[in-house]
Amino acid sequence: MKKINAVITGVGAYLPDYILTNEELSTMVDTSDEWIMTRVGIKERRILKGEGKGASDMGAEAVKELLKKTGTKPEEVDLLICTTVTPDHMFPGTSAIICDKVGIKNIQSFDMNAACSGFLFGLDTATKYVQSGSHKKVVVVSAEKMSSITDYTDRTTCVLFGDAATAIMLEPTEEEIGIQDTILRTNGIGRHHLVMKAGGSVKPASHESVDANEHTVYQEGQAVFKHAVSNMADVAVEIMDKNNLTSEDVKWLVPHQANLRIIDATARRMGVSKDQVMINIEKYGNTTSATIPLCLWEWEKDLKKGDNIVLAAFGAGFTWGAIYLKWGYDSK
Amino acid sequence: MKKINAVITGVGAYLPDYILTNEELSTMVDTSDEWIMTRVGIKERRILKGEGKGASDMGAEAVKELLKKTGTKPEEVDLLICTTVTPDHMFPGTSAIICDKVGIKNIQSFDMNAACSGFLFGLDTATKYVQSGSHKKVVVVSAEKMSSITDYTDRTTCVLFGDAATAIMLEPTEEEIGIQDTILRTNGIGRHHLVMKAGGSVKPASHESVDANEHTVYQEGQAVFKHAVSNMADVAVEIMDKNNLTSEDVKWLVPHQANLRIIDATARRMGVSKDQVMINIEKYGNTTSATIPLCLWEWEKDLKKGDNIVLAAFGAGFTWGAIYLKWGYDSK
Ligand SMILES: CC(C)(COP(=O)(O)OP(=O)(O)OC[C@H]1O[C@@H](n2cnc3c(N)ncnc32)[C@H](O)[C@@H]1OP(=O)(O)O)[C@@H](O)C(=O)NCCC(=O)NCCS
Ligand SMILES: CC(C)(COP(=O)(O)OP(=O)(O)OC[C@H]1O[C@@H](n2cnc3c(N)ncnc32)[C@H](O)[C@@H]1OP(=O)(O)O)[C@@H](O)C(=O)NCCC(=O)NCCS
Repeated sequence: MKKINAVITGVGAYLPDYILTNEELSTMVDTSDEWIMTRVGIKERRILKGEGKGASDMGAEAVKELLKKTGTKPEEVDLLICTTVTPDHMFPGTSAIICDKVGIKNIQSFDMNAACSGFLFGLDTATKYVQSGSHKKVVVVSAEKMSSITDYTDRTTCVLFGDAATAIMLEPTEEEIGIQDTILRTNGIGRHHLVMKAGGSVKPASHESVDANEHTVYQEGQAVFKHAVSNMADVAVEIMDKNNLTSEDVKWLVPHQANLRIIDATARRMGVSKDQVMINIEKYGNTTSATIPLCLWEWEKDLKKGDNIVLAAFGAGFTWGAIYLKWGYDSK
Repeated sequence: MKKINAVITGVGAYLPDYILTNEELSTMVDTSDEWIMTRVGIKERRILKGEGKGASDMGAEAVKELLKKTGTKPEEVDLLICTTVTPDHMFPGTSAIICDKVGIKNIQSFDMNAACSGFLFGLDTATKYVQSGSHKKVVVVSAEKMSSITDYTDRTTCVLFGDAATAIMLEPTEEEIGIQDTILRTNGIGRHHLVMKAGGSVKPASHESVDANEHTVYQEGQAVFKHAVSNMADVAVEIMDKNNLTSEDVKWLVPHQANLRIIDATARRMGVSKDQVMINIEKYGNTTSATIPLCLWEWEKDLKKGDNIVLAAFGAGFTWGAIYLKWGYDSK
């Protein structure tokens, strides 16, 4: 029985057209391009406009692009995992809705939530399915309509987030490529620092919770920042050490895009140079679980088979982690 | 390399004290014990009372019982999956909160949502982790505070649901026991028949959505009933056929507890007699992803090592499926 490896064989994405700039934000709250660029590193983000549109509308477009790029028919997909903190509804799962919108029927499909680290957690779960031999074409969709939970009167959070969806395909291979190692962690110590206070079972929606803006992101920025910097950098270095990777061995660091300063600190700790780091936070902001695959999608043409890549993320929970993988294909 | 099997090694549960009877419901809406018992088969359900209490409060108690019963220290658990449609918050994950409440730190942990079929989906994912060899003590918590999303002015839904939490431990074994086979399916065809309309990214909470009661379960009962009966019975028979199980081979059917008539139809199609079916809907109602483990918990003392058990569920999405397992231990 040969060991089965799980390898990413394609990446799709969807970005809404509407661009929300720092200039426009400056007309909404007391902020400035200079503050945002210096403290966070974001110039603009995409926003999904249109009544009744949810995360699944973007997720479905990302999956369609993925199926097209990889020449996959909907009926060939045998597992679809959706990572999101902004599901269309509490139920049914956004995964079920995306399946319906792209014509995928009767397969195994579920939603996962590990906040901003969701893609890493979803990719690891998908890896287990592929490695077990039970599933052959696994899609991980990360779909986030952050604008639906952003308070556009709060300058400390509304400048941070953007909307986007991505989809990756994971398949089995006997080659020594694909997912090599994973470290994933959770610590509920962070549960009060980054939270959507209402709309769950602790505080169901009411007139009071709507008036108090409790259906949007609440964040104690500095506390989160401190943990993000140390945990993300630590775990990235840990996965390098565990796999005997030097900074030259690492072709790319793909960090969660929450704050340019967190990204820089992680790169510094790993000893990798700026041109080894995928950074597109300037254009899209923090799209939660979609940031990492959105980078892979944008840099896809520069990736070569065998490239050593380290993914690293941090998010609400707290959740955090790193995945070390060898890229699976040269771009066509 | 010997094949690793994944076996359930313990079950914990938590049931809130408050009992909501058909008599009390009859004072709230135009219903009767006679209608509910005839059409659904529920006499009473448990309700979690107390301001600010969420699914995690029950989930944490279920995990504590599980750890105690199995003699496990919090630091020995290496993966915790929480299945829920009533998370405490959209983020952080209820899994992270439960970890914090029971003293589990820095392990991998995430939320999964496959509605009423959530336990089967969570158990299958947990099985992949155990079988891969990467994780050795995996907890699947199913925590549902359905009372937080139930409209107690709608007689067609408020009689159905109850609150509960459960937790199972899954561990590796080389014996021929534990999870034997799984069939899980999703079809978004059902997405309009059973849905919480507001509170997600499609329709964020607003005064209008609160006034319209859109933060509670919306169900087209007959459409859901029709699909539930046929899909749950079909998949239960399919897993029997696939594993050459006759109705005598099956010691127990453990069906999702949504409606006694759906349970009876499934048992009939499988050819199993009433005394082979675990049924406690009368006492607890539909506790969503907690129903199946709640049955295992209640019948634990009657189970023998090697017993063939078929789990079958159906829920929003639609999601549905069946798991065939051999029970792992005689009760002490
Ligand atoms: C949110 C974050 C960018 C804020 O940056 P910061 O340097 O910590 O800023 P502070 O919160 O300390 O605020 C400093 C000042 O800037 C102000 N400020 C905050 N947002 C501002 C904005 N958009 N424009 C102008 N001023 C702003 C604050 O009100 C504060 O003013 P005060 O000193 O008069 O009270 C930063 O904390 C951060 O990135 N946190 C982590 C985010 C993250 O990683 N999330 C996890 C994953 S989702
Ligand atoms: C919800 C459910 C119990 C309703 O039973 P039903 O036999 O389909 O009943 P109907 O919806 O057709 O309603 C029949 C009548 O009973 C009435 N009724 C509904 N609930 C009632 C109640 N609690 N008390 C009294 N009358 C009630 C209806 O208003 C209707 O009255 P009408 O004929 O005057 O309009 C049933 O459809 C069901 O179990 N559905 C599936 C649930 C499920 O599996 N969910 C999936 C997993 S979560």
